[in-house]
Amino acid sequence: MIIKNGYILCNGIQKKDICIEGNTITDIGKNLRGSDTIDASKFLVMPGLVNTHTHLAMTLFRGYADDMPLQEWLRDYIWPKEMKLTPQDCYYGNLLGIIEMIKSGTTCFSDMYLREDQAVKAVKESGMRAVLSYGIADMGNKRRGEFMLRESLKFINAVKEPRIDIAFGPHSPYTCSSDFLLKIQEHALKLKKLTHIHLHETKEEIKKFEKKYGKTPIEMLESAGVLNSNVCAAHVVHVSGKELDILRKRNVKVLHCPASNLKLANGIAPVADMVKKGICVSLGTDGAASNNTQDLFAEMRLMALLQKVEDPGAMKADTAVKIATENGGTALNWKTGKIEKGFLADLIFIDLKKGFMVPRHNLASNVVYSMNSSAVNTVIIDGKFVMKNRKILTVDENEIIEKAREHAFDLVNR
Amino acid sequence: MIIKNGYILCNGIQKKDICIEGNTITDIGKNLRGSDTIDASKFLVMPGLVNTHTHLAMTLFRGYADDMPLQEWLRDYIWPKEMKLTPQDCYYGNLLGIIEMIKSGTTCFSDMYLREDQAVKAVKESGMRAVLSYGIADMGNKRRGEFMLRESLKFINAVKEPRIDIAFGPHSPYTCSSDFLLKIQEHALKLKKLTHIHLHETKEEIKKFEKKYGKTPIEMLESAGVLNSNVCAAHVVHVSGKELDILRKRNVKVLHCPASNLKLANGIAPVADMVKKGICVSLGTDGAASNNTQDLFAEMRLMALLQKVEDPGAMKADTAVKIATENGGTALNWKTGKIEKGFLADLIFIDLKKGFMVPRHNLASNVVYSMNSSAVNTVIIDGKFVMKNRKILTVDENEIIEKAREHAFDLVNR
Repeated sequence: MIIKNGYILCNGIQKKDICIEGNTITDIGKNLRGSDTIDASKFLVMPGLVNTHTHLAMTLFRGYADDMPLQEWLRDYIWPKEMKLTPQDCYYGNLLGIIEMIKSGTTCFSDMYLREDQAVKAVKESGMRAVLSYGIADMGNKRRGEFMLRESLKFINAVKEPRIDIAFGPHSPYTCSSDFLLKIQEHALKLKKLTHIHLHETKEEIKKFEKKYGKTPIEMLESAGVLNSNVCAAHVVHVSGKELDILRKRNVKVLHCPASNLKLANGIAPVADMVKKGICVSLGTDGAASNNTQDLFAEMRLMALLQKVEDPGAMKADTAVKIATENGGTALNWKTGKIEKGFLADLIFIDLKKGFMVPRHNLASNVVYSMNSSAVNTVIIDGKFVMKNRKILTVDENEIIEKAREHAFDLVNR
Repeated sequence: MIIKNGYILCNGIQKKDICIEGNTITDIGKNLRGSDTIDASKFLVMPGLVNTHTHLAMTLFRGYADDMPLQEWLRDYIWPKEMKLTPQDCYYGNLLGIIEMIKSGTTCFSDMYLREDQAVKAVKESGMRAVLSYGIADMGNKRRGEFMLRESLKFINAVKEPRIDIAFGPHSPYTCSSDFLLKIQEHALKLKKLTHIHLHETKEEIKKFEKKYGKTPIEMLESAGVLNSNVCAAHVVHVSGKELDILRKRNVKVLHCPASNLKLANGIAPVADMVKKGICVSLGTDGAASNNTQDLFAEMRLMALLQKVEDPGAMKADTAVKIATENGGTALNWKTGKIEKGFLADLIFIDLKKGFMVPRHNLASNVVYSMNSSAVNTVIIDGKFVMKNRKILTVDENEIIEKAREHAFDLVNR
């Protein structure tokens, strides 16, 4: 397949063709030939976005509890209802989130939640790409830890799907003992799997941890020897320069979630500093109960604006795009997020005829600061069209939205 | 005209009918009858948003210069090109901005710029509602001030259009002398016109001002006796409790522009405190060169998230909606922004079938936190349909976008 004459977002903007064979980009150039061509002359063609941290089935809780502190939110609203989630709830919650992601240009995501078997099903059917993990925690209980680790290993062995990778999902240092994390790391390194963990999200969690152990969570993980390049750490809002150095040295991937961090009053992560230090920062929406969208374009704009609060040059548009695309691919260990020979054909077409994409002084700037995701016209994942002219081709959007609405309504009244 | 069976956003959500006669809402209730009915059962019907601070023709500069300090941005990029703006440039710049606003649910805006005669033309043709003002400044030069005031008065007397009001637009306390501002106030009070001014936007401007006059700009305006309920003050980012008390006492309207304030590194205005004090805060996008959109839904979400950075309850969704609608009407002195008998029929229909509007646990929360403006399906301004099913009915969208693109390209290469 040849994508003809698009404005290609890759090292600036170039008007070129892209050749795709199977699921891979095999050439980029002028006047490429092939039997199957797509005219992209009215579009900006860019890599699909990579959402590196979400709890996808929580779309069912969107708008269920807002504008309150994290603990109250969890204890009084989310946890009691999560106990009542059925597999079907999770299936439709995942699909609702996937639809929202496809329509807003995300082609790969990383999830941590419960009933991930349902996420597998939803990802398979929708044509999405994902890294999925069960959220697990030993709570200092060895037996519980062993059981959960066994279940995770079973899940890893059971799932062999082309667009799906499975990761370990230890919830956080304050819910997982060092022994448990160390055991997980042994398996993760052996099986070449990622570890997806929450890290330094709230001030309170760090303070409590320090009081208990005399070390911050990052220092503890470092001394336990569980930090490495396969660790994907969500949030990292409150962090010292010394701790950033540790993350850099161990090549830990940071998954930044600016909307969630604001909405739950956790603050603003020092992303510009992380980038300066050479840390691989990528972007996540977090679950829809604390954001409340799965729209990574909105997240990208928010990130870029927030970093400028004191320095207008702190994050340039190009950097923001790289964080939302290429860095996500690096973090999740998929060859995605970049238009380059040998990379996966995960691409989106942006409609340049929208008012907010005009003028075209700087298309990267438009993508970050003025675009909204309704300009995403076409989505290709793994070399296949998943959305064309805003119509999703793999699953029935209207049916899913209606079913998800019913399940969500039923769930909160259960 | 009867709008039947919509979910009406007015004191919570109610499923009711709205009766419109001429340009006015004349009834809200169950089972209203009329010859001309519109089925709104699949929509959330809410007041159109009110964008209280922009420089609309600057859409031509969208993406032209980003990620740099305010002074460099103005001096090296914006000012030299503004000198070269033609009336036609401004006409298409205004129309491009108006299209973006209509498509994102804004039904009334307040502008300050040059060549406002072109804004008048664009507003008339598009069916928009607006308060327009020439940006003027005496720069301490009495003659210049007299000339500019005379021109403003001429403009005020010349424009008699049904959906347009004209305001005075003294640029700021640091470019306008107290004498000049006092003279403007005399005319403004006599003619019952608003005064639209920039106030306390940057730390530097306040510091310089204090050094020169021994008072902050707000203190100076208070002692000069020019603060009153007709003054609309844009930004107000850096402000003491005492200064907020002055603004409250004089019932000055604050026009909050969160994206611009971040993008130009001016900071975060204490909006939650202002609301607590009883100050009327409304919402603006600022010009597209420093935002870079004219999408007030994006602005509303940003505002609500930013205020939560330390307190998740600092701004609830309902308050954010009120700021973006009703308070805008109050500030601009139009009876708009509220679904209530006697208010202007400035309404928008939100498509509830979009994925990000599901579930419907709390529609106000969805509007603020998860919606993007592509869900705006229909726009009514002054009792007339301006957009139906996302098609603008008053002007030719595609032609305007193309013309604006050409003018912008030509302008930066002039």
